[in-house]
Amino acid sequence: MQVAVVTFDGFNELDSFIASALINRCRKDGLEAFITTPTPVVTSMNGVEVSGQRPMEFIPEADVVLIGSGVKTRDVIADDRLLAMLPLDPARQLIGSQCSGALVLARLGLLGGMPVCADMTSRPFVEDFGVTVLDASFHAEGNIASAGGCLASQYLAAWVMTRMLGEDAARGSIGYAAPVGEQQETVERVMSAVRAGEPALR
Amino acid sequence: MQVAVVTFDGFNELDSFIASALINRCRKDGLEAFITTPTPVVTSMNGVEVSGQRPMEFIPEADVVLIGSGVKTRDVIADDRLLAMLPLDPARQLIGSQCSGALVLARLGLLGGMPVCADMTSRPFVEDFGVTVLDASFHAEGNIASAGGCLASQYLAAWVMTRMLGEDAARGSIGYAAPVGEQQETVERVMSAVRAGEPALR
Repeated sequence: MQVAVVTFDGFNELDSFIASALINRCRKDGLEAFITTPTPVVTSMNGVEVSGQRPMEFIPEADVVLIGSGVKTRDVIADDRLLAMLPLDPARQLIGSQCSGALVLARLGLLGGMPVCADMTSRPFVEDFGVTVLDASFHAEGNIASAGGCLASQYLAAWVMTRMLGEDAARGSIGYAAPVGEQQETVERVMSAVRAGEPALR
Repeated sequence: MQVAVVTFDGFNELDSFIASALINRCRKDGLEAFITTPTPVVTSMNGVEVSGQRPMEFIPEADVVLIGSGVKTRDVIADDRLLAMLPLDPARQLIGSQCSGALVLARLGLLGGMPVCADMTSRPFVEDFGVTVLDASFHAEGNIASAGGCLASQYLAAWVMTRMLGEDAARGSIGYAAPVGEQQETVERVMSAVRAGEPALR
């Protein structure tokens, strides 16, 4: 089971790497995440150059596609060539967005009437598509989820692990990464944020 | 004011990137973090290739040096050539370690009698140096701090921002990155973990 963490130029490191690193704690269970990029190398909003682990052609093969966030997402959604590289299929893929990644889901017309979560900066641009942005950090309906606020990438990762492997796998990964001595409270906080955002998991 | 986030081959993305991205929210205030590496490119524990932003020669210029964690830290402390690239000076630099980074501080003899925080996997190897590992996520004395558990990298970043710029800067960065709707509780949780770990800030 493979996860594409789609990462564009200008990306926010928190958004792509928290999700991918937490999910990769589940590699032993057969779930693996890959930084997926439109060019061989992308540069973060803070000037860090990262080589993609997979090209965009990987996306149709992925079981899960997470759209990361960054400072250039408005350029992404204006670029028809880039959008054509995102043939997302919520009928057979889990799809998630982090912060401004919600703009990509809106632009691709994947949201129907469902609301999303996004960061405060992205919010008005998402609303321009007629999409409601919730005052919340995580929301999921069916196979589509969104998270708002960089550190909510933990929730998006926990949702993916729960949906793909079950709640125990998500608890194991979050517990491992939690601050020492705060494992239980961190796991409960993350899992309850995911449950609050996805009524179907309650 | 410059922060070197020292990042070795086999590094954990959570450890290096949570700290660097949070600190870089303070670039407008004159505090900036750079991924600092012994080779032009390092590869993470999950196979992500990252180009260093600064070489190890940058370390003596840095005001703050954070030693990241990874799966090869025991190789690092066995490599005299690498250790010679770490002329850390707690008299004029803030120095912090994340998880197995505590092994580097122990090996360099920087800890004197002070205890540290580290993850459970690194703990016995740190203890082999006669250093006490606390059942806690963050500890600081004077200019030296350590954090244990990947997500405790938030605490290390908050300590750096507080010490370099004051508590308001730390609160601003953590609040910006927090999950939407959880800004206040996230900021209070992080700042109280830092205060609990550094008696001098209480």
